[in-house]
Amino acid sequence: MRQRNKPWADDFLKENAQLIIPNPSEYKGKWSTLFGNNNPIHVEVGTGKGQFIVGMAKQYPNINFIGIELAKSIVVTAAQKVLEAGSSNVLLLNENAGDLVEIFAENEVSTIYLNFSDPWPKNRHEKRRLTYKAFLDQYKTILKQSGQVIFKTDNRGLFEYSLVSLTDYNMKLEEVNLDLHAIQDESNIMTEYEERFSAKGQPIYRLKASF
Amino acid sequence: MRQRNKPWADDFLKENAQLIIPNPSEYKGKWSTLFGNNNPIHVEVGTGKGQFIVGMAKQYPNINFIGIELAKSIVVTAAQKVLEAGSSNVLLLNENAGDLVEIFAENEVSTIYLNFSDPWPKNRHEKRRLTYKAFLDQYKTILKQSGQVIFKTDNRGLFEYSLVSLTDYNMKLEEVNLDLHAIQDESNIMTEYEERFSAKGQPIYRLKASF
Repeated sequence: MRQRNKPWADDFLKENAQLIIPNPSEYKGKWSTLFGNNNPIHVEVGTGKGQFIVGMAKQYPNINFIGIELAKSIVVTAAQKVLEAGSSNVLLLNENAGDLVEIFAENEVSTIYLNFSDPWPKNRHEKRRLTYKAFLDQYKTILKQSGQVIFKTDNRGLFEYSLVSLTDYNMKLEEVNLDLHAIQDESNIMTEYEERFSAKGQPIYRLKASF
Repeated sequence: MRQRNKPWADDFLKENAQLIIPNPSEYKGKWSTLFGNNNPIHVEVGTGKGQFIVGMAKQYPNINFIGIELAKSIVVTAAQKVLEAGSSNVLLLNENAGDLVEIFAENEVSTIYLNFSDPWPKNRHEKRRLTYKAFLDQYKTILKQSGQVIFKTDNRGLFEYSLVSLTDYNMKLEEVNLDLHAIQDESNIMTEYEERFSAKGQPIYRLKASF
């Protein structure tokens, strides 16, 4: 996602440290204490501008959502959305997806969402794709045994790659949908990107998989 | 596929018993002797009118192809195509896909093709889908260890179901393509149905999987 320079972002992060947690590894294994309840924890890796996580938080008030977004200038936009919505069950992290096992304890997370992740189409960038085995290692560690990875994308190449990568890792596909918007799934919360893209009539792919 | 009544079909089958083998279980474990060589054996389950198997036989003269088609009135059309093409590396069977383990010995087959199989969309007909676990049992038995199932369809529901069913059976997806005709795969031999269907611009799905 293209980033605009936002000089006020640093100040904003400091002022909203209750929402965008500055040292998340301190809460490893203790996220429930921060939410003040024992509801299941769902993590979105690559939260972008936050439409998905805010929509989900509203739809599922008894689930705690944590959004991870590496781009500082984008996580602040997501934070503004959370503040506007007044969601009390969302936290954000301005962190790298490669550090998940530093942030979450084993079995701490119930569901991981990957939404419209960067496809990194070149072979030499395979390791950066969020469905590459090194990331699956992390998801497996932090997910509960019954936990799921739910992955949505419009990118055919990335979805094809992911189906092979996940099954090569012995993950089970619980559900696959090759044209998500063809089924009238009212519970599907769209990302900003998804909304724009699906309006063109092109298919959105989704899978749910477990270890 | 709709079947027209062909009163001459019985006579045709008798006259062409060297091509449409009448008692295939007699050759279980001995198909190579019938072909007169030790080339790999590829089986198409649901051969239909034969365009795929005849095209493949021409493209791969060092592979032996066996096409299975339950409908008598359709297998004769496939047989006519084989005769016209003069393919010496094709045999046909007017048999049920449920009888594969009666027809082939363990590890006798290198590749199994499923092309545009009947989707049987109703839940209560799941057991009839050629990617249902009872069929996978059979494929696993007759396939060599390195053998593949190659499945093509335009039916989204059947493809989604098959991805889940195969991985639930612990099969590995070697390759998945969600729009086969978007890649210019010159080696892809189209079935009659595929030719008609893809002309409308709708996607053809293909997977290659192993046990």
